[in-house]
Amino acid sequence: MESLDVLGKNYVREDGKEIVAGSGCFVDDLSPVGVLYGAVVRAGRPHARILNVDTSKASRAKGVACVLTAEDVPNNAYGPVFQDQPVLCGEKVRYEGDPIAALCADSWEAAEAAARLIRVDYEDLPAVTSAEEAIRPGSALVHESHPTGNIVKEGRVIRGDVAAGFAEADIIVENRYISRGQEHAAIETHICMAEVDPAGTLTVHVSSQTPFRIRGDLSKVLGLPITRVRVLSSTSGGAFGGKHEIMLESLASLCALRTRRPVKFRMSREEEFTTSSIRHTFTMDYKFGVKRDGKITAAEIKLLVDGGAYCSAGPGVVTKGALMGPGPYRIDNIQADFTLTYTNNGNAGAVRGFGATQTCYACERHMDLIARRLNMDPLELRSRNAMETGDPAHSGDPITSCGFVETLEKATQAVNWDAIGRGAKSACGTKRMGRGLAGMIYPTAGFGRGGPTAAFARVNEDATLTVITGTTDVGQGANVILRQIAAEELGIAFENVHIINGDTSISPFDPGSTGSRISHLAGKAVQAAVEKVKTQLLEKAAGMIEADAEDLDIRSEEVFVKGAPDRRISLKEVALACHKAAELVLSEATCHSTDLVVDANYQGKAFECYVFATQCAEVEVDVETGEYRVLQLSAAHDVGKAVNPMNVEGQIEGGSSMGYGLGLTEIIQMKDGMVQNPDFANYLLPTTIDSPERLIPIIVEAAEPRGPFGVKAVAEPAVNPTAPAVVNAICDAIGAEITDLPATPEAVLQAIRNGS
Amino acid sequence: MESLDVLGKNYVREDGKEIVAGSGCFVDDLSPVGVLYGAVVRAGRPHARILNVDTSKASRAKGVACVLTAEDVPNNAYGPVFQDQPVLCGEKVRYEGDPIAALCADSWEAAEAAARLIRVDYEDLPAVTSAEEAIRPGSALVHESHPTGNIVKEGRVIRGDVAAGFAEADIIVENRYISRGQEHAAIETHICMAEVDPAGTLTVHVSSQTPFRIRGDLSKVLGLPITRVRVLSSTSGGAFGGKHEIMLESLASLCALRTRRPVKFRMSREEEFTTSSIRHTFTMDYKFGVKRDGKITAAEIKLLVDGGAYCSAGPGVVTKGALMGPGPYRIDNIQADFTLTYTNNGNAGAVRGFGATQTCYACERHMDLIARRLNMDPLELRSRNAMETGDPAHSGDPITSCGFVETLEKATQAVNWDAIGRGAKSACGTKRMGRGLAGMIYPTAGFGRGGPTAAFARVNEDATLTVITGTTDVGQGANVILRQIAAEELGIAFENVHIINGDTSISPFDPGSTGSRISHLAGKAVQAAVEKVKTQLLEKAAGMIEADAEDLDIRSEEVFVKGAPDRRISLKEVALACHKAAELVLSEATCHSTDLVVDANYQGKAFECYVFATQCAEVEVDVETGEYRVLQLSAAHDVGKAVNPMNVEGQIEGGSSMGYGLGLTEIIQMKDGMVQNPDFANYLLPTTIDSPERLIPIIVEAAEPRGPFGVKAVAEPAVNPTAPAVVNAICDAIGAEITDLPATPEAVLQAIRNGS
Repeated sequence: MESLDVLGKNYVREDGKEIVAGSGCFVDDLSPVGVLYGAVVRAGRPHARILNVDTSKASRAKGVACVLTAEDVPNNAYGPVFQDQPVLCGEKVRYEGDPIAALCADSWEAAEAAARLIRVDYEDLPAVTSAEEAIRPGSALVHESHPTGNIVKEGRVIRGDVAAGFAEADIIVENRYISRGQEHAAIETHICMAEVDPAGTLTVHVSSQTPFRIRGDLSKVLGLPITRVRVLSSTSGGAFGGKHEIMLESLASLCALRTRRPVKFRMSREEEFTTSSIRHTFTMDYKFGVKRDGKITAAEIKLLVDGGAYCSAGPGVVTKGALMGPGPYRIDNIQADFTLTYTNNGNAGAVRGFGATQTCYACERHMDLIARRLNMDPLELRSRNAMETGDPAHSGDPITSCGFVETLEKATQAVNWDAIGRGAKSACGTKRMGRGLAGMIYPTAGFGRGGPTAAFARVNEDATLTVITGTTDVGQGANVILRQIAAEELGIAFENVHIINGDTSISPFDPGSTGSRISHLAGKAVQAAVEKVKTQLLEKAAGMIEADAEDLDIRSEEVFVKGAPDRRISLKEVALACHKAAELVLSEATCHSTDLVVDANYQGKAFECYVFATQCAEVEVDVETGEYRVLQLSAAHDVGKAVNPMNVEGQIEGGSSMGYGLGLTEIIQMKDGMVQNPDFANYLLPTTIDSPERLIPIIVEAAEPRGPFGVKAVAEPAVNPTAPAVVNAICDAIGAEITDLPATPEAVLQAIRNGS
Repeated sequence: MESLDVLGKNYVREDGKEIVAGSGCFVDDLSPVGVLYGAVVRAGRPHARILNVDTSKASRAKGVACVLTAEDVPNNAYGPVFQDQPVLCGEKVRYEGDPIAALCADSWEAAEAAARLIRVDYEDLPAVTSAEEAIRPGSALVHESHPTGNIVKEGRVIRGDVAAGFAEADIIVENRYISRGQEHAAIETHICMAEVDPAGTLTVHVSSQTPFRIRGDLSKVLGLPITRVRVLSSTSGGAFGGKHEIMLESLASLCALRTRRPVKFRMSREEEFTTSSIRHTFTMDYKFGVKRDGKITAAEIKLLVDGGAYCSAGPGVVTKGALMGPGPYRIDNIQADFTLTYTNNGNAGAVRGFGATQTCYACERHMDLIARRLNMDPLELRSRNAMETGDPAHSGDPITSCGFVETLEKATQAVNWDAIGRGAKSACGTKRMGRGLAGMIYPTAGFGRGGPTAAFARVNEDATLTVITGTTDVGQGANVILRQIAAEELGIAFENVHIINGDTSISPFDPGSTGSRISHLAGKAVQAAVEKVKTQLLEKAAGMIEADAEDLDIRSEEVFVKGAPDRRISLKEVALACHKAAELVLSEATCHSTDLVVDANYQGKAFECYVFATQCAEVEVDVETGEYRVLQLSAAHDVGKAVNPMNVEGQIEGGSSMGYGLGLTEIIQMKDGMVQNPDFANYLLPTTIDSPERLIPIIVEAAEPRGPFGVKAVAEPAVNPTAPAVVNAICDAIGAEITDLPATPEAVLQAIRNGS
């Protein structure tokens, strides 16, 4: 690739300081005159029929402006796949966070006090509290009208002939792994503010990854045309997959439409735990056939998934989990079954990693189990099976760029793999050293999320560039990335590009910051739009310096003849000439992946392209207490092309921390469908104290031909390999197998006791 | 033209009630936390050298946040033609409103008190107080460095051979007419608020016709890239040509950049009179050669124009005045000279009608003078010379649509021309009846204002349409008009179109709501953009109902086969199908008049197209007191196509009222360059009491082939024919000539005395 001026360099995000300091303008900072504050009455029980809702006292309470129940919702059902979730429950509640009534009042306190005056009479129903129970004949039904009972969706990925593959194998290794619920744990809880202008247009200020989905769902639920619903994304205090539903937005909007005053709703931290979505619990049966030399001949996977009370994004989660289930390994014979169930266990939904986090854990633990059975170095086993460019993905489509082998090499070199975690385990008698690694494959922009994304580009009369997209920066750095891509493409300074987004009325539709699609797909749309304005400018410049437009290029804000760089003109002059000639330098480009399609076996082209990673951990475990320290963690990620290396490293660090939490510290304690620890005192997020003592982010760049400047993705999948890498290292240290998550010190101690 | 569903019907403007009631969100209603309030120290003398500015006391005054003088302005000069106007004066002041210092403080009161503490030492200079004085040799120079002294610009329109034309004439009629300064008199005075975000981007909330000019000028004056300047147009409380300069915006921006707090500046009503721009005073010598049968053979016009202290839009004003000077009459030999001067008489600039108001007055008074000399009915004289479609305009370009004759007929029929103002003058002894009429030609979207305008169109997944333009609705109804054009073009309901504008960061460049360009040119851009999305939808629909896209059309939100209207599909289904297929229905269209170009004689194609009008008045004058009443006023305007007849009528009524003020009540009393009556108690705006007792707006539609659906313009030129029509009627009643404006009762009485 030719040398680049802006791409691959570190630019500081303009909003970075304000976001970190909390001084940016978040939704909670909006305080228009006359704003009302909302409160929600929630079920507080896992499964019950609603007999009666009495709001009379609340309606008369001091400061209350309006009270809503199910009958106030024009179209009371929503959901991205099935419309199975009510805005307000009228007939029954299906998990403890289900909302029955909502109201708004002059203050948060008045709203909460009034909410306590609402009386709901229930008839409790038996709760379905696990996926196993959900599929057991005779279990209570979570959705009586769902045609397949408590089974939301079943499916099977088939590639090759798994029976033949097992027949070929020397050994067959089987085990069960469990990955459990996890909170998104964004610092900013769910929040929104709705207001209605005199013409009746609803404006909703949200902290969301998917303002256009919010707009579409609100339009349906409220029965308003889309042109009457404007969604503005404010600065986000974190999303991680958890902010794309209209849980509060529809309530605030209904209140605002009724009262004609601005209305704000927000979740308490407790509501975040009991109400908003969590990561799906996966029970994963892995069975691999392997030759003595380590070659994997067959993989049979069975996923049983606790989908919680509503479908949400569940079908996508389990499908992606299944398709990524066999890991970054060339396996010709695959069968991966999945069963997604309804339960009364909270509200499972999209979380960073989206199903592949769970199967990455199972697969990479399973690879270590196989290595141990073969008495083979886990690195060696992975290297022998590693996918390479041109290999088929598990959906059969050829992988167009694969840096997995390089991530294996670099991640292990960084921690000095051959020397760590071996031999004498430590100076101290109770401490044991261990090493572990985990590979990863993850798709960018898959089916249903492949597109479309569009961008408008405008060159202003002073040769600065404005780009409008529908993408949302939820903290991952989308804006700085798209700005760098635009600046590089046009040949101008980073500072001279302005990205506009965050308002559904002004930008074209975009599916949102989901599915690892922004840098790659939105980047491609931005590049295409900028390429068009560049062509316009080159044509103008050609007339000004008497050259052919095809012979010209732009760099450092100058247009020059490629063969004779002394013949040049400043881009400012060209832009001004266009302006004076009344020629607007404008363009529009849409990008979508029309070729994404799979058959009944999930074979075809399922995703735009794939990223790969290897993370590698060294741990020290106290075998008397089960406590451990991660001494070092290397994380080598193939991102295609690092647009902003500092940002890539930041995402690797953040993702690893979230993966660490999933693997080692975070547990939602459920009892009969009720969360027992809905606060950060009892739900343990990893802190800087828990972090690996040495964290080494490593960028690998296997340029993607489909990507803009080779760009693929990084932010979302950085979460995936950490849990298996660290748990593998702990298992190595203790010489015993841990299969369930998280691997808390108590679990480690239990494993030592079971294993020895 | 085929039948229309949305165009030509009356739709109420959604913001209408709020604007009229003052309850909309105007700039003055914005009150962010920490806002500062500005005050400006102005010259208070017409012409002086600045010796010293002492801001030390003001800087220390209670509540003052920042004080600015000339040296704080990065690039201290601006202006649309010549950059001759300083943001803050450093060396000299050239009119009484010239600003020397500005400051901001915690309250309006604190700011005003601190401003009084600033001491400026001056050396007064002789003031140039008329255009005649300006061009007199030896006069003081307003701008010492201007290459042609006090002459800003001179020019001559030449068509045919004026000497030959006069030779052909039977009689030659000469006279001098004067049209004087007029206030825009918007109810909302000039106001703005600037704020700076943490990344350093300046956002300026304005009430302006030309947010993009504000943005460009601020960018230059502040030395900021355009991408760092965002201009938001709030609801406007009126503009009328007077809101396109950065008089306050640059001061508020400099204060905001320095203090990092929001800063608001506004003009008092007194500042509106002494500081903001006014209509140019024209002294107009008219000489027409005429045959006995009324045929005009030659027109020689000399315009001497008082341009005030700064150039502003003056060159455009005088050129348009000259080109419209011979009126809506086919005259083959024309010479129109103009001289624009610098004086110390306030600040002349763009006002509704833009030079043509003045020459329309002179021309139409002159036509009556000729009719009287020929003893011919003024209607007959005009009819014999009336322009028709295909005739050349005074710039030589063929007129592509001309409804002038129809306006003559309809306006005169409406008041029963033949029967009024004649014979016995009234029952009462001192009352005399009179009748008068005036024709008009006015261009839409001329040179320098011909373009460009662009529009983005987006069809949402529910088949509603969003249109983004850079146009601004300053109360004239631009938004409702563009919405109707978009709805008609796509074949959907008015309610399902959303117009987005008013933010320079989100929409493409637009020159602003000036030059009668919005309905025609922006309408054309909107139509073109919508046509493109319609094509996309028809192509999709063609696949869905198995037809050729060319055979399809859309009406009432349904796509149908033109030859077989039963074969149809709802547009909602088509839009949703596009959405599900990830095909964004988006387009962009630019509209600009590249063919507008004139030679040194101002011959060529100067304007997009022309509108025409006739207004016709019946008056009753008390010849003892000079008092008069307008009994009826008909106003027939050829608008091409009336998009929203109610809105057209509203603009005719409003324009006539402003024209009435110019002609009859409004006078800026100047003494030595200083305004003597800077308030509405002494500057008399016409009220409902002054209005014609019967005002008859009449719509004439000579469809313009270049326009969208035939649309031309109406709002701006509606001001032009009223003053001459009413003054002609008064002159008819009193049998004497009035040449100077306004024709107050005192002036009428004087004319009676002089004439009798």
